[in-house]
Amino acid sequence: MKSFASDNWSGVCPEIMEALTATNNAGHIPAYGELEDPVTLEAEKKFNEVFGTSVKVFFVYNGTAANVLGVQHLMRPYQAIVSAHSSHMNEDECGAPEKISGSKIYTIESDDGKITAEDVKPFLRSVGFQHHSQPKVISISQVTEKGTVYTPDEIATLADFAHANNMYLHVDGARIANAAVALGVSFKEMITDTGVDVLSFGGTKNGLMFGEAVVFLNPVLANDFEYSRKQGMQLHSKMRYIAAQFDRYLTRDLWKQNATAANRMARLLADELVRIPQVKVSREVKANGVFVLLPESITETLQQHYYFHVWNYDVNEVRLMCSWDTTEEDVRGFIDVLKGLVGTPSKPQ
Amino acid sequence: MKSFASDNWSGVCPEIMEALTATNNAGHIPAYGELEDPVTLEAEKKFNEVFGTSVKVFFVYNGTAANVLGVQHLMRPYQAIVSAHSSHMNEDECGAPEKISGSKIYTIESDDGKITAEDVKPFLRSVGFQHHSQPKVISISQVTEKGTVYTPDEIATLADFAHANNMYLHVDGARIANAAVALGVSFKEMITDTGVDVLSFGGTKNGLMFGEAVVFLNPVLANDFEYSRKQGMQLHSKMRYIAAQFDRYLTRDLWKQNATAANRMARLLADELVRIPQVKVSREVKANGVFVLLPESITETLQQHYYFHVWNYDVNEVRLMCSWDTTEEDVRGFIDVLKGLVGTPSKPQ
Amino acid sequence: MKSFASDNWSGVCPEIMEALTATNNAGHIPAYGELEDPVTLEAEKKFNEVFGTSVKVFFVYNGTAANVLGVQHLMRPYQAIVSAHSSHMNEDECGAPEKISGSKIYTIESDDGKITAEDVKPFLRSVGFQHHSQPKVISISQVTEKGTVYTPDEIATLADFAHANNMYLHVDGARIANAAVALGVSFKEMITDTGVDVLSFGGTKNGLMFGEAVVFLNPVLANDFEYSRKQGMQLHSKMRYIAAQFDRYLTRDLWKQNATAANRMARLLADELVRIPQVKVSREVKANGVFVLLPESITETLQQHYYFHVWNYDVNEVRLMCSWDTTEEDVRGFIDVLKGLVGTPSKPQ
Amino acid sequence: MKSFASDNWSGVCPEIMEALTATNNAGHIPAYGELEDPVTLEAEKKFNEVFGTSVKVFFVYNGTAANVLGVQHLMRPYQAIVSAHSSHMNEDECGAPEKISGSKIYTIESDDGKITAEDVKPFLRSVGFQHHSQPKVISISQVTEKGTVYTPDEIATLADFAHANNMYLHVDGARIANAAVALGVSFKEMITDTGVDVLSFGGTKNGLMFGEAVVFLNPVLANDFEYSRKQGMQLHSKMRYIAAQFDRYLTRDLWKQNATAANRMARLLADELVRIPQVKVSREVKANGVFVLLPESITETLQQHYYFHVWNYDVNEVRLMCSWDTTEEDVRGFIDVLKGLVGTPSKPQ
Repeated sequence: MKSFASDNWSGVCPEIMEALTATNNAGHIPAYGELEDPVTLEAEKKFNEVFGTSVKVFFVYNGTAANVLGVQHLMRPYQAIVSAHSSHMNEDECGAPEKISGSKIYTIESDDGKITAEDVKPFLRSVGFQHHSQPKVISISQVTEKGTVYTPDEIATLADFAHANNMYLHVDGARIANAAVALGVSFKEMITDTGVDVLSFGGTKNGLMFGEAVVFLNPVLANDFEYSRKQGMQLHSKMRYIAAQFDRYLTRDLWKQNATAANRMARLLADELVRIPQVKVSREVKANGVFVLLPESITETLQQHYYFHVWNYDVNEVRLMCSWDTTEEDVRGFIDVLKGLVGTPSKPQ
Repeated sequence: MKSFASDNWSGVCPEIMEALTATNNAGHIPAYGELEDPVTLEAEKKFNEVFGTSVKVFFVYNGTAANVLGVQHLMRPYQAIVSAHSSHMNEDECGAPEKISGSKIYTIESDDGKITAEDVKPFLRSVGFQHHSQPKVISISQVTEKGTVYTPDEIATLADFAHANNMYLHVDGARIANAAVALGVSFKEMITDTGVDVLSFGGTKNGLMFGEAVVFLNPVLANDFEYSRKQGMQLHSKMRYIAAQFDRYLTRDLWKQNATAANRMARLLADELVRIPQVKVSREVKANGVFVLLPESITETLQQHYYFHVWNYDVNEVRLMCSWDTTEEDVRGFIDVLKGLVGTPSKPQ
Repeated sequence: MKSFASDNWSGVCPEIMEALTATNNAGHIPAYGELEDPVTLEAEKKFNEVFGTSVKVFFVYNGTAANVLGVQHLMRPYQAIVSAHSSHMNEDECGAPEKISGSKIYTIESDDGKITAEDVKPFLRSVGFQHHSQPKVISISQVTEKGTVYTPDEIATLADFAHANNMYLHVDGARIANAAVALGVSFKEMITDTGVDVLSFGGTKNGLMFGEAVVFLNPVLANDFEYSRKQGMQLHSKMRYIAAQFDRYLTRDLWKQNATAANRMARLLADELVRIPQVKVSREVKANGVFVLLPESITETLQQHYYFHVWNYDVNEVRLMCSWDTTEEDVRGFIDVLKGLVGTPSKPQ
Repeated sequence: MKSFASDNWSGVCPEIMEALTATNNAGHIPAYGELEDPVTLEAEKKFNEVFGTSVKVFFVYNGTAANVLGVQHLMRPYQAIVSAHSSHMNEDECGAPEKISGSKIYTIESDDGKITAEDVKPFLRSVGFQHHSQPKVISISQVTEKGTVYTPDEIATLADFAHANNMYLHVDGARIANAAVALGVSFKEMITDTGVDVLSFGGTKNGLMFGEAVVFLNPVLANDFEYSRKQGMQLHSKMRYIAAQFDRYLTRDLWKQNATAANRMARLLADELVRIPQVKVSREVKANGVFVLLPESITETLQQHYYFHVWNYDVNEVRLMCSWDTTEEDVRGFIDVLKGLVGTPSKPQ
C-alpha cells in the first residue's frame, strides 16, 4: 500500500539499485573516497557539470548532517544561523545544530516558510555587540517546509544581502530537485548563478537509498571540510556506495525524471482535492507536497488507508507528500476513499 | 584486483545485496523505524535471539557513530573514557569522541592493544578529585587494533571491575564477528554473559554496505538513546535499508560464514608468510589481520600489485587484512609476487 | 558622576569591602574551598539559614555561569530549556547556553517578561517525539528583564507544573534581592517553599565585587556539580574571597538593606517621572528598574549627564536602573536635567 | 599558620588591596570594560608597555579560562593541542579543554615538564590525514608543572617550529612572573621577542584576588575574542576590579617584587633541605616551588604543621610552594619541625 506520509517512505528507484549493483560488482575499491577512488571521482565530476562550475562536494549520510556540518564549517560557535522558525534545521533536528556547532539559531516567523533580507536585517543590530551571537549564516530551505519555492531572483537577493553583510547563504536542498522542476530551471541557474555559498544537496527523498551531498559553490569555504565531516561522524568507509548513487542520479537527468513524476502527482492530487467541497487545499502547490484542511472526523480512518502526517493539529491541516513512485492510481485511490468518507459520490472511472 | 588494505575495501556480499533488493521491492514503509516498521522490528528480534536476552538495538550509520554515541550516552562531559592508546576511538576518529561527548580519553599504552583492570586502576585515584575528569566508561576493541582478541574471561573481569567501580564497559566491535569466530564462541557467550554494558556491533567490515548497531545489553542505559542518535545526526530516514542488512546478517549465521572465510584466509596468509625468511609475521594471528615486517625496499612495488597499509613506519610493519571475499587465489597471488620481490623462488602450483 | 545605566556600574558596598579585607587578613587558607576552608563553610551555613533548608551551594564567578551551569547540570544535550524570549539566558549570553549545554532554548513571547504554565504546555507536544528537543528545564528570571516580579504563588504554580511533567524549575536571580524586597517575602518563602529546583543567586548587581551562587534546593540534583563547575571554568582558586562576600551579604540582612535602597530610589524616580508630561513611565515599577518613553531628541544630551541604556529603539523606551548607592540627590539631579531638557520648569529645592 | 601547599593559599598583597579600594572609591564606571572604562584602558596600556608592543589583552576570571579560551580561539574542533602530558591543561582541568574547544590534546611524556620541537615532530605525520586531529597549537607552561623554566631561546625555537608548520605557540603563564625573575629577563624578552602567539598571564598565584589576562602578541589572532570570552562565561560585569589589579601589578614592578620574594624563599628552603640527609631535593629549584622526597612516615605529621601536597605518591615526592608572603621565619619554622621529625638536631638560631 502506498502512503502520502513522506517521500522517504518510498523506496529506491530501479536505476539507483542498478548503480549500486554495478558498483558492487567492481570488487575492491579504496575506502573513504581516498587514493583516487574512481567512483567518487566520477561522481564529483558530475557535480561540476551539473553546477556549471568547479564545486567541492563531500558526501555524508543524511540531511541532518549535510545541513549541520555544512553550516557549522562556516561559523565559530559565537556566531549564529538565521533561518525561518519553521526550518527543518530549527524544528526537527532535536537540537543537532546547537550541539554540533555550539551556535544559536535566530529564527523568523514566516507563514509561507520563506524569509527575506528585510526579515534578516533586525539581527544585524547585534553585530559588534559582545553580548549577542553574531549572525553569520542565513539558511533557507528549497523547497520550504511549507511547500513553497524561492525564485532564483529571491535567492540571489538573499545571497547579495548576506555577502554585503559579511554573512553566507546556505540552502537546505532536501527537495532541491523538486524545486528545480517546479521552477523549470537548472541547478546552475538556481544555485550557482544566484551566489549560494553552500548547499545541502538531497537525494534520499527522491529515490536514493542513503547519502546526501554538501556542495561548496565557493571552494575556499570547503577547506578542511574533510575533518569536519570525519569529526562529525559522517565519513563513510565504503564511500563509493554513496558516490555511485549520486553519479547515476545526475546522469541522464534521473533527478529530474523522479522529481517531475512526484510534482505531477501532487498537481493531480491538488486538482482533485479542490473539487471536493468538504476539504480545502490550504497552500499553493508548487512542488510535491499538498497541504489540506481535512475534517477531523475522517482523518484517522483515511490514514488507515493511506498514511499521512497531520501538520497543524489546531486546524487539522495535513500534509500529503508525493514520491517518485506515486502513481495516478494511488492518487485516484486516495481521492476515492476520501470522497467516500466525506460523502461525495465517487465518479465512475 | 583484490587488496589487503582493509576489510572495507571489499564490497557487499551477495546475500546482503539480495536482502536490500527484497526490502526495496516491499514498497512504502514507515520512515525512521517508526510506526512499527516491520523490517526494523524483525531485525531487532534477531538481535534478541543472537544475544540471548532482551537487548535494545539502535541502528546508526557507521562505527565512529556507534562508538561515540554509545559511549557518550553513558557519560556526562566531566567524566572520562578509559581505553588503550591504540584504540580506534582515541587514534582514528579525528577527535569525534572529544567533540561529541565533551569528554577526555584516558589512555593506556599497550603493546598488544589489550588492557586489563590493573591498567585502569591508577585512574581511580582521580575519583572524587574535582580537578580531574572522572573515569566512567572502559572501552575495549574486540578484535583489537593490533589483531589480538580478548577471551570471554578477560572481558568478564573487565566488566566486573567496571561495575565494582561505578563504571561501564563498552566494546568496539567493528570486527566482532571475526573475534567470535576466532574464539569459537557465540555473541551471547562473549558479550551478554560477560557483562558488557554496550556494544558497537559492526557489519560494514564483514560484507554490509553501510550501518552499524549500538546494542545495549543493559536496557536501562538505552533510555532516551533515540534522542542522542537523532542529535548525533545518525537517524536514517529509510531505516529499513540498515535493518534489512542486519536482519539478513544475523540469519543462518551469515556473519559467521563471512568472518570464517576472512579469518581462514588470514591464517593461510600467515602460514605462507612464515615460510619466507625475508619477512617476519610480527604479531600472533587471531582473526583476519596479519601484521608483517617487510623489507622497506619492496613495499611500494608490492603495494602496486596488492594494496595494503604500512602500520608502523619506524620498523616497516605492514597490516594485511583479509575480507569475506578474499580467496586462496588472492593469497597465493600475493605470496607469489612477494616471493618474486624478495628473491625466494615461487613453488610450482 | 552617578549613572542609571545598570546596577553593575555601581561599586562594592563598604560592608563587602570590609569583609574582603577581614578575610585577607586571615592569611593562608586552603584553595578551591577544599580541606574545610572555614570561610566557605561559614558562607554555606548562611545559605542554609536564609533558605530555611539544607541547600547545596556552589560559588561561581558570574551570572552567565550560574545560569548556564545550573541549568546544564540538570539536562542532557537533547533536552531543552523553556524560557521567555526576553530572558537574559536567551538574549544576552552570546550563545553560552547553547554552546556549553549543547541544548536548544524554546522561547515564549511575553510582553511583561513573565511566562506561565499555559505558555509552556505547547512544548509538551514534543515529548517522546525523537525529532524534537525534549523540554526539561523551565527557566524564569526574578526580577524579569522587563522589571516585573513573579509572586510566590506564580512560582509555585510553575514548579508544580514542571514537576508534574518531569521537568525542573530554574530561577535566574540576578536581582533576587530586589524581588524579595518588592514582594516583602523571604528567600525561603519565594524559593524554597515554592518548589524551585535550582536558583542562580546574584550579588554583583547589589553591592558585591564578583561572584554568584548556584543554589540547589533539591540536593540530589547537586550531585557531581563540582565537576560541572570545574569543567565550566568556574572554580575559583581563592574561593574564600567569593564566600566571604556572600557570608557578609547574608548577615544582618545586608542584601535587604541594599535592595531596599535601590528599590526605594526607583520608586522615587518613577514618582517624579509621572509628573513630567513629556515622558511616560511605560511599565509598572516593581523593583529597582524604571522603563520610560523619552523624547528621542533629548536622549543623547541626557545620557551625557546621567548615562542609561535605550531598551527599545523603535519607541525610544529607556531603562533607568537604581543601585544600592543611588541617592535622592542623584534622582533629583537627573529629574532636574530632564526637566530642563523637556522644558518643564524645575521646582526650587 | 602559613602553608607550603600552593601559592593560591596565600592572600592578596597589600598593594592590590589598596588598588581595589581606590577603584571602588571612584564610584560608577561603565560595566564590561565598555564605553571606554578608564580603568580597563589604563591597564591595557600597561600591558603594551610591559610587552613592548601593541598587544591585545582580555581579562578573564581564572587560569583555566585563560588557557582554554586563549587556545580555543586559535583552533577549530578538528584541530589539536600539543602539550606535555603533565601540563595543567591536560591533567588538572577536568576536561575543560576538550569540552569547550571540542578538541583533542596530543600529549608528550616529559620528565622535567618541558617539551621540544623534536617532541612535537611526530604529530606532524597526522597533517593532511583526515582520520586524525590536526595539530594546531603547541602549549607550554612557564614555569612548568615540574618547577622547570624554559629559556627564551627554547621558547623561540618552539615558536619558530610552530610557525614553520602552520601552528601557534601558547604559553600557560600561571607563574610567568616567577619565571621572569628566575631567568632575569623581562616579559618582552621572554614572550614578545621569542614569537609567542598568545599568553595566559597569571596573577592570582602572585598576590591578586582574582582575574587572569589573555594576551595576544599577534593582534590579528585576537579578532572576535570578545565573543569567545562572553560565550565562555568569562566576561566580568564589574571589569574594572580585574583591570585595577593588573594595572597595579604591572606598576613599579609589583609583579617582580612579589615573585622575587617567593623565589628567594624557595631557594632558601632548598638550601636548608639539602643539608638534611633524610630528605632529598628531587628537582632543580628554578622558581618558587621545591620538590622533595620525604620519608612517608613523617609526611602526615609535617602536613599538620605546614600543609603541602604530595605530588607523586609512588615515591612520596612532595611539592613545597613559596608565595609572595612566605617569610624566612616560615621557612625556618618548617625546617625545624622537619628536623625534629627526622631526628636531625635543630641548630640554635
